[in-house]
Amino acid sequence: MTASLDALPLARRITGHAYRAGASLVTTLFTDEEATLMRYHYAPDPSFDRAAGWLYDGMAAAFRSGAARLAITGANPSLLANEDPDKVGRANRAMSRSYQPALELITRFHINWTIVAAATPAWAAQMFPNDAPDVALGNLWDAIFATTRIDSDDPVAAWKAHDANLQKRAAFLNEKRYAALKYRGPGTDFRLGLADDHQWLGGGSTAENGLYCIPNMPTEEVFSMPHKDRADGTVTATKPLSHQGTMIEGIHVRFEQGRIVEMRASKGQEVLQKLIDTDDGARRLGEVALVPHSSPIASSGKLFFNTLFDENAASHVALGQAYTSCVRGGEKLSPEELAGKGANKSLIHVDWMIGSEKLDIDGITASAVAEPLMRRGEWAD
Amino acid sequence: MTASLDALPLARRITGHAYRAGASLVTTLFTDEEATLMRYHYAPDPSFDRAAGWLYDGMAAAFRSGAARLAITGANPSLLANEDPDKVGRANRAMSRSYQPALELITRFHINWTIVAAATPAWAAQMFPNDAPDVALGNLWDAIFATTRIDSDDPVAAWKAHDANLQKRAAFLNEKRYAALKYRGPGTDFRLGLADDHQWLGGGSTAENGLYCIPNMPTEEVFSMPHKDRADGTVTATKPLSHQGTMIEGIHVRFEQGRIVEMRASKGQEVLQKLIDTDDGARRLGEVALVPHSSPIASSGKLFFNTLFDENAASHVALGQAYTSCVRGGEKLSPEELAGKGANKSLIHVDWMIGSEKLDIDGITASAVAEPLMRRGEWAD
Repeated sequence: MTASLDALPLARRITGHAYRAGASLVTTLFTDEEATLMRYHYAPDPSFDRAAGWLYDGMAAAFRSGAARLAITGANPSLLANEDPDKVGRANRAMSRSYQPALELITRFHINWTIVAAATPAWAAQMFPNDAPDVALGNLWDAIFATTRIDSDDPVAAWKAHDANLQKRAAFLNEKRYAALKYRGPGTDFRLGLADDHQWLGGGSTAENGLYCIPNMPTEEVFSMPHKDRADGTVTATKPLSHQGTMIEGIHVRFEQGRIVEMRASKGQEVLQKLIDTDDGARRLGEVALVPHSSPIASSGKLFFNTLFDENAASHVALGQAYTSCVRGGEKLSPEELAGKGANKSLIHVDWMIGSEKLDIDGITASAVAEPLMRRGEWAD
Repeated sequence: MTASLDALPLARRITGHAYRAGASLVTTLFTDEEATLMRYHYAPDPSFDRAAGWLYDGMAAAFRSGAARLAITGANPSLLANEDPDKVGRANRAMSRSYQPALELITRFHINWTIVAAATPAWAAQMFPNDAPDVALGNLWDAIFATTRIDSDDPVAAWKAHDANLQKRAAFLNEKRYAALKYRGPGTDFRLGLADDHQWLGGGSTAENGLYCIPNMPTEEVFSMPHKDRADGTVTATKPLSHQGTMIEGIHVRFEQGRIVEMRASKGQEVLQKLIDTDDGARRLGEVALVPHSSPIASSGKLFFNTLFDENAASHVALGQAYTSCVRGGEKLSPEELAGKGANKSLIHVDWMIGSEKLDIDGITASAVAEPLMRRGEWAD
């Protein structure tokens, strides 16, 4: 389990429940945001190309011997907002490289895993800047409870019904086997080809160890793998993108054969440019996700400054790394075979909201027939 | 760095100073004692034979790539006092086994390392049970400051002088190369042979990476390796021995040819019996240490319930495992060669205080001349 120190009370409750549910050993790695800041303020410059590889390798070893993974998110969204973007970028790259083997075991569901959220003071202050600290914290907990259905009379039943609905949507799309999606909305006219043998997922998954797990709580999306070479047209973001403490706004992008060939942002353009310059895959798409505009996160109208929530606020695409699990039998394919089906590869994976109540999406069949999939941001059926 | 959550303020200050001193990355593993208790209360029984091997292997990997190690001690001394001793023993054994590769790199000074203490509420409550919590915590900090010379005008200079003094004592004893020590005091009449090629150590050490480090703060002892077959006579303990939550008092023991052949204790005799029955080496000696009675820990008269402090309160011997570093070139010797020089081997290593202001110690030269080493608990010179 990983948690920020502010999430200690939730980490403890989860620990107790995990042992009662039969866990043999719960090991929690706590992150101290003050220590992270001290690194940026005092550490020598070459430090920022280093990461705790020994720890991430250790996590990968734990996953190989069957450990489950639970992450409690709740970091201060603007912790690094005032730090040198070059250092932030280098530290993130070093970390991503080190974490790769562990992350690969997670994303292909070698183990069961879950990400949940805990309200923390800094996060609450950013979301509810006009409220007193304790009111803001209470508001954020309420928002977390609402989006995870904890505020309903029978939260477990409500969550199960929600999960079943997501599974049903994914099954429908898997039966349809669309060759591409066509997006039309203000500033958006975009055709996105889907990967060969792509698979739509939503809600829970059965991990390779046979355990059913909900990787994200909340989750509102059904998602799949776009073909890395088959994105064409213009896309306008419908929400700001909060990336490592910087807000990137007014993003407008043009794709040709899968690659971003033109990009502008009304705010944070430099950070976005740096992001898509990470590697070749950083300017291609690795994920496509559909979220109805009526979902609790979208209808809350709130920006959470946290991907776990904000990626569920609207239909989106992600720049960068594709999920192996979004190709049928993907976990058994070599990197070359995956690339052959259209899977993108990158050190980054950044979600990017393009859905709104004004967006229409068609599914394009193998025989080039357009079928209405979403209309004005809602499922068309 | 490892620290209990209660030591967070000190961990943060050390983190800041470490970065300012040039550390590239400080990774702190925090221990939550509440989570440890939940394991004892709720985890399934087979859990207690498991340890987070992935984490300890990761630490060993970090040491092999040059990471330094800093431990902040300050655990609740009686955290597990009410837990099932069988579970405690099994969990400790599983942990020790997993930690062995990392510990081996530490004890042979492959890296530079240090153990320091932070006052924590539970520890303070045990040491100062009659004081209010904040008073107790302040008292414990004062005691830590006194024993580490932080209460002097120039703490760094005071510590360096203290370290130089310990080095000087060890050098003197290494030059003398006594064959044995002879102890005389109330209830004690004891001759302890030293291991062949034994080496006295005290204060700081230069690690294999060339960095000078103080492994223990505080430290008051100069210590070496007794010969496992050469202890004869009677010894009376001068302080209670706190072993896994049990106090063992009034210990009186008779040795013949290195082995305990008679033992009694006025309190906790059963626990002591169990301890020395662990294996053959558990009834032989693995360490001998000299501490003057005027040292700050001894003169405080306090029992700290923490080995880092209590082993520095008086001259002592330890039942069980010997330290390889206490034989010249010991790290290059095989287990058989070490045993040939008199090194004891055991799963336990338990320190046991025998010094007092009434104890005299002579050094016995190779030609059987007795030279006064300590008189009435103080260095004789």
